[in-house]
Amino acid sequence: MATVTPWEVKGDIDYERLIKEFGISPMPKDLPKVLTDNHLFRRGIIYGHRDFNKILDSIKSKKKFVMMTGLMPSGKFHFGHATVIQQILLYQKMGAKLYITVADIEAYNTRNPDMQELKKIALEEYLINYIALGLKPKNCNFYFQSQRSKDGKKSNAYYSLANKVSRNITFNEVKAIYGDITPAKLSSALLQVSDMLHPQLSEFEGPIPVVVPVGIDQDPHIKLARDIMYRFKEQKFMTLSSTYHIFMPGLKGGKMSSSDQLSYISLTDTPEQATNKIRKYAFSGGQATIEEHRKKGGNPHIDISYQYLTFLEEDDKKLKQIYENYKSGSLLTSELKQICIDKVTKFLKNHHKQREKAKKQIPKFIKF
Amino acid sequence: MATVTPWEVKGDIDYERLIKEFGISPMPKDLPKVLTDNHLFRRGIIYGHRDFNKILDSIKSKKKFVMMTGLMPSGKFHFGHATVIQQILLYQKMGAKLYITVADIEAYNTRNPDMQELKKIALEEYLINYIALGLKPKNCNFYFQSQRSKDGKKSNAYYSLANKVSRNITFNEVKAIYGDITPAKLSSALLQVSDMLHPQLSEFEGPIPVVVPVGIDQDPHIKLARDIMYRFKEQKFMTLSSTYHIFMPGLKGGKMSSSDQLSYISLTDTPEQATNKIRKYAFSGGQATIEEHRKKGGNPHIDISYQYLTFLEEDDKKLKQIYENYKSGSLLTSELKQICIDKVTKFLKNHHKQREKAKKQIPKFIKF
Repeated sequence: MATVTPWEVKGDIDYERLIKEFGISPMPKDLPKVLTDNHLFRRGIIYGHRDFNKILDSIKSKKKFVMMTGLMPSGKFHFGHATVIQQILLYQKMGAKLYITVADIEAYNTRNPDMQELKKIALEEYLINYIALGLKPKNCNFYFQSQRSKDGKKSNAYYSLANKVSRNITFNEVKAIYGDITPAKLSSALLQVSDMLHPQLSEFEGPIPVVVPVGIDQDPHIKLARDIMYRFKEQKFMTLSSTYHIFMPGLKGGKMSSSDQLSYISLTDTPEQATNKIRKYAFSGGQATIEEHRKKGGNPHIDISYQYLTFLEEDDKKLKQIYENYKSGSLLTSELKQICIDKVTKFLKNHHKQREKAKKQIPKFIKF
Repeated sequence: MATVTPWEVKGDIDYERLIKEFGISPMPKDLPKVLTDNHLFRRGIIYGHRDFNKILDSIKSKKKFVMMTGLMPSGKFHFGHATVIQQILLYQKMGAKLYITVADIEAYNTRNPDMQELKKIALEEYLINYIALGLKPKNCNFYFQSQRSKDGKKSNAYYSLANKVSRNITFNEVKAIYGDITPAKLSSALLQVSDMLHPQLSEFEGPIPVVVPVGIDQDPHIKLARDIMYRFKEQKFMTLSSTYHIFMPGLKGGKMSSSDQLSYISLTDTPEQATNKIRKYAFSGGQATIEEHRKKGGNPHIDISYQYLTFLEEDDKKLKQIYENYKSGSLLTSELKQICIDKVTKFLKNHHKQREKAKKQIPKFIKF
């Protein structure tokens, strides 16, 4: 498949712009099978990286590495979040150690100063979905920024690092990332840097390759952490790696965002709610009338239902067939939407069952 | 004594200026005997306060309270530092719980990025002197900002507080205190606020009166901590108390400062070095010739040797006699210097003996 999928094309266009603007590198063409077996890598949904070769080397030589990611405990867990989870699960299966931080201090400082509520959202809205999707407790270091560890040495090291790196940055650098900078934002930025770098402290793994999968909007944080990593004199860090994935778009196009209820399908939406949202709001690439559609064909590149399928339908042949049928006009918008609805419905029904089982697993992940 | 000592007079003058400029209150006249038994309180060397009534109430009703202070592990421990130690020892004898922080993160961020060296200075230059002067391990919570606790819950709470309070302040407030603000200074300021407020967290003592003895130059930090204390919504704090003491002046007048070797007598100076410094550098309030001195008398208010004696000579009658003899001209500058030298020599000889014993005590204070 690889070179002919629509996503690869879109990916290629992004590469050029992003390589230019952000200085990130396109994904190498010769990824190992363990990665291309996953449709996110295979289709170029994960399209770019910084120093991912360190991770590729680890995979090839079967050496240890860490995948680090964070979650912001606010709003609903939606399909847009699933792209990161799929990567979490992939890396966990490959034997990587996971570091997953709940950015509760950042949420407290910038959004919602109710720590109890933040904890509840993190566990009942996020962690439970991670578990239902397949996250295992083994090699999974799930923690809250406010409660890094039961073990004082580890807590001290994590927070000390956040405080120490403050000497390695200037306000202008922080302003370039956060715009209107406040003490609260700076404090959150320093913790975030520690989230990304502390796995390499001697109190944790020691120097080790660490990859952080993000959307391009998070790249300034990656760059800040990398700059600090080079400047920090007290300890040698291995260069931080990152990968960049395309966002799952919102129902009406644009970003899928927790703050816009009509932009997302939540993982706790009922199949009926999801069906209704797709029918009513999912932006279509079809023509105005059935006659016109049959004649001119639809445009899968702007069709949200089709784009969702590139994330959800792992079978390349099926996806390619849908793409061609829609483009030729033999597949109508209502039919394409129904394929998407069926996929989402099947997913949600199974997921809700898994959620019930997942509840009991939560304590296994809480190490504080 | 109380009302007639020279220090009381100087104190009165400061009160007016400081009450006006800083909004602090003069020490009440009816202090309990346990305080006036100490010459620092009795002579008005501790001349002002904020909300010290909370501590006075605790003393009167024999309720628990905390004395919090910090040390910056840089340079030599000198006589100027002793004023705080005397208060530490006084409060410890009274049964207060002590919180003593080593501001190693602040030192790392703003002075010397060598944590091992900072630790060495803190223990071998500071803590050892505290112990030699009489500090006991009981009820003494001595800690490093970089290593708050062995107990993860306590570490987490201390650092989380520092991070959370960032949302309660603006950059302009921090700038007003630190002038040219950097991420490193902000980070240190937030830790310092946590140093002062965290004793009241449920993980430590819970709400309790806390007094911080400082020089007036530290008042902006106190005010910042008090402002935040009122604004912090997650927990109710008791109002933070502070007291203000006069600085022991440098040998040539001005401030006694670790960064100016000729301004201070260190507690590790030999009696010969100290004698030499006092003879050579201690600014004198005497007249140009012996004849003139006998006729006009000296000025103890500007004489450094005399001022040192107000800190070192605890016997009011002796001090008063020296004051009057010097003022009348019957006591010459060289004689006054010798009294000071004798006092300092006796102190240093004993102190150096105590230091040897103190070394073995260090592990009892290190709880991390």
